[in-house]
Amino acid sequence: MSHPKKEYAIAIAGLGTVGGGVYELLRNPYHHELIEARSGERVSLHAVSDLNDKLAKPLPPHCRFVPDALQLADDDAIDIVIELIGGTDGIADELVTRCLGNGKHVITANKALLAQKGATLFALANKNNCQLAFEAAVGGGIPVIKVLREGMMVNHITRMTGILNGTCNYILTQMARQNRAFSDALHDAQQLGYAEADPSTDIHGHDAAHKLTILAAMAWGEAGWDTSFPVGGIDHITTEDFHYASQWGFVIRHLADGVWHGGRVIRHVEAMLLDKNHDLAHVHDVTNGVLLHSEPLGPLLLTGHGAGRAATAAAVISDLTDLMRENNSLPIVNDGYDKKTESHNPLSRAFYIRLEVEDRAGVLAHISEQCAREGVSLNHIIQDTPQGKHTQLVMTTHPVQQDIIEILQKTWQKQGDILTSPQIIPIFQ
Amino acid sequence: MSHPKKEYAIAIAGLGTVGGGVYELLRNPYHHELIEARSGERVSLHAVSDLNDKLAKPLPPHCRFVPDALQLADDDAIDIVIELIGGTDGIADELVTRCLGNGKHVITANKALLAQKGATLFALANKNNCQLAFEAAVGGGIPVIKVLREGMMVNHITRMTGILNGTCNYILTQMARQNRAFSDALHDAQQLGYAEADPSTDIHGHDAAHKLTILAAMAWGEAGWDTSFPVGGIDHITTEDFHYASQWGFVIRHLADGVWHGGRVIRHVEAMLLDKNHDLAHVHDVTNGVLLHSEPLGPLLLTGHGAGRAATAAAVISDLTDLMRENNSLPIVNDGYDKKTESHNPLSRAFYIRLEVEDRAGVLAHISEQCAREGVSLNHIIQDTPQGKHTQLVMTTHPVQQDIIEILQKTWQKQGDILTSPQIIPIFQ
Repeated sequence: MSHPKKEYAIAIAGLGTVGGGVYELLRNPYHHELIEARSGERVSLHAVSDLNDKLAKPLPPHCRFVPDALQLADDDAIDIVIELIGGTDGIADELVTRCLGNGKHVITANKALLAQKGATLFALANKNNCQLAFEAAVGGGIPVIKVLREGMMVNHITRMTGILNGTCNYILTQMARQNRAFSDALHDAQQLGYAEADPSTDIHGHDAAHKLTILAAMAWGEAGWDTSFPVGGIDHITTEDFHYASQWGFVIRHLADGVWHGGRVIRHVEAMLLDKNHDLAHVHDVTNGVLLHSEPLGPLLLTGHGAGRAATAAAVISDLTDLMRENNSLPIVNDGYDKKTESHNPLSRAFYIRLEVEDRAGVLAHISEQCAREGVSLNHIIQDTPQGKHTQLVMTTHPVQQDIIEILQKTWQKQGDILTSPQIIPIFQ
Repeated sequence: MSHPKKEYAIAIAGLGTVGGGVYELLRNPYHHELIEARSGERVSLHAVSDLNDKLAKPLPPHCRFVPDALQLADDDAIDIVIELIGGTDGIADELVTRCLGNGKHVITANKALLAQKGATLFALANKNNCQLAFEAAVGGGIPVIKVLREGMMVNHITRMTGILNGTCNYILTQMARQNRAFSDALHDAQQLGYAEADPSTDIHGHDAAHKLTILAAMAWGEAGWDTSFPVGGIDHITTEDFHYASQWGFVIRHLADGVWHGGRVIRHVEAMLLDKNHDLAHVHDVTNGVLLHSEPLGPLLLTGHGAGRAATAAAVISDLTDLMRENNSLPIVNDGYDKKTESHNPLSRAFYIRLEVEDRAGVLAHISEQCAREGVSLNHIIQDTPQGKHTQLVMTTHPVQQDIIEILQKTWQKQGDILTSPQIIPIFQ
């Protein structure tokens, strides 16, 4: 099977955290040699690009610095462009589109771009006989894209549930362990570099939603690119919720969940109560975890570093080696799923409800009567008046439709004896 | 990228649990279609073989039944032979060798054969430009071979620790949960089909050792095929050990462990005490789990069904689809590891020690003085006299060399005031 070795000329666009890590790995003789030994081909760093030219120094021999990343797309000598600029409002989109249009392979970690334009970009790559590789876009160093597309390629995925955002998971585990308020835990995460200065993409669930979109398209086909599923964050979760949830054996996790349900896929991203013995309840701090249920394989859990320079750079390099050995991405196959995503969760779920109520006789009777009138059956109830605080009425329901819970929520928002906005969190089942 | 579709003619040798599952998947129109859609090629079932011809019925069109599996090796029409006969004392070895010798691809789940003859068989496959695929040989449905060889191909593996034998894990978790004696839990496992009538390969650790051998060769290169590392089982573990271990926050798991240690690989397979918060402590019953530590990726945990008809058949089919799309196995690269395996663990480890002693003054003083004389420092000590039983002296040590523990063990075996053979179990760190 020996053949003349092919030399792949590559370029890196963006030398920030991940791009800098990739640049470092490619200049490291041990890893450079391992890439060539494992792929059986040669690789050379042809060009790098960043707004800050200092990040490129020292340049290795035969590698040039290009201030404008778009030039990489038109350089005929380059075979593979590694896009690590990120975002959807800068030049990343144009760079990836031009590279694929020119028949260059692209490796990217840009989940926002893929979630928004994946369908178009993969079609363009396919048309031009080139590859768009993106292992680093979901789950950082966890090889979930390879496992889903190759390892499970002849399985029917029935459900995927993930802790896909390390920032949210860090904040929630700190709130639980240290009894910290959300804003304090967010501040800690920012100090440690686990959260951005503007954390909204993470804490409002959009980052996890981008990742779920990509996973769904890989598992179920083109309809997965539809993004009209409900997305929630974690900034409404309080230390009281952890306190009461733990009394019933639950932790709180920010979960991205997709369920195959008779030809439809029900997706949602939100903070949920999770049984403390569930596999994903053991995923702490910035670790990510993905639980894939499929037939005939059964459940498969993957956990590892979901972000960070080293793990994400390693995922980029594994894409590079796959491209060099021509292990091409598999076609996206529509696995019987061609309907639009539900904008509303039609499945019955149990809910956790916490209401701050006036401390007077008859409030519990009133609220439980309201539940009964809507056919909502209660499972656990705690009434508690912590020192110096209002009375807390905390309940869990048996499974109930989302729209019924929303009726109750609206009623309670207007109700005089309920003092603050009702806290309603679904329970993962 | 369209090209004329290639048709792969395949044969299954052995229609037992896993082979029957593969046969079923290939005849299932949904999975047959998915294999062709995802691989982009065609597949046809050309022949099946088993000692029992009833297992082949009903034969699909154009598929023939062959009583002698070796005939498959010489049938020019067959491209891929799936060997699911198993074992090393029957015809599996001859079948695989003849198929590879004739340039046919082979898919196998035969871990014993690979552990014993992997080096020869892979060299033969390489020489004849054909593939030997074996995802199902380790971790059942968990795609650990793909993850290790492809997803982590440019990482340096620093440690791998696995729960690789579902029978052992089932027995140990039942002993812990139900307070069952080893022999009773083994009997339950046999009733449920989780243990063979002759369970010795599983409960004495040989099956896990075969799997560790294969993983080590994939991670570190040819020297991994060396099998002269220590292998132990679980039949010496008692309910008392679970009782005392749990008081110090430990569970007991049968672990296969390989550590990269300065150019050497230290491997061992044995029952160990494991911190109850360790990732692998959450792996229960017949589930398998593998924790891979690597640089730069960091830790990666995979858990799933380690055995069983459906999961193992799914792994075989994923190999088949990889072969059809010419995603060829990567070469085994020696990752700086060319020394012989240590037959003895040179790393210091902590140990759990349980001694049944005479209930009289001075015994504890005598034993702790013996430990002190060998430089063994004790961490926890419990002295306990359960009703109707001898006094139990239970200790954990600080890290100590294996040979020092063995000196103490020999001394205690001959010592009059120690009534039964000393129980000594390493603590995983």
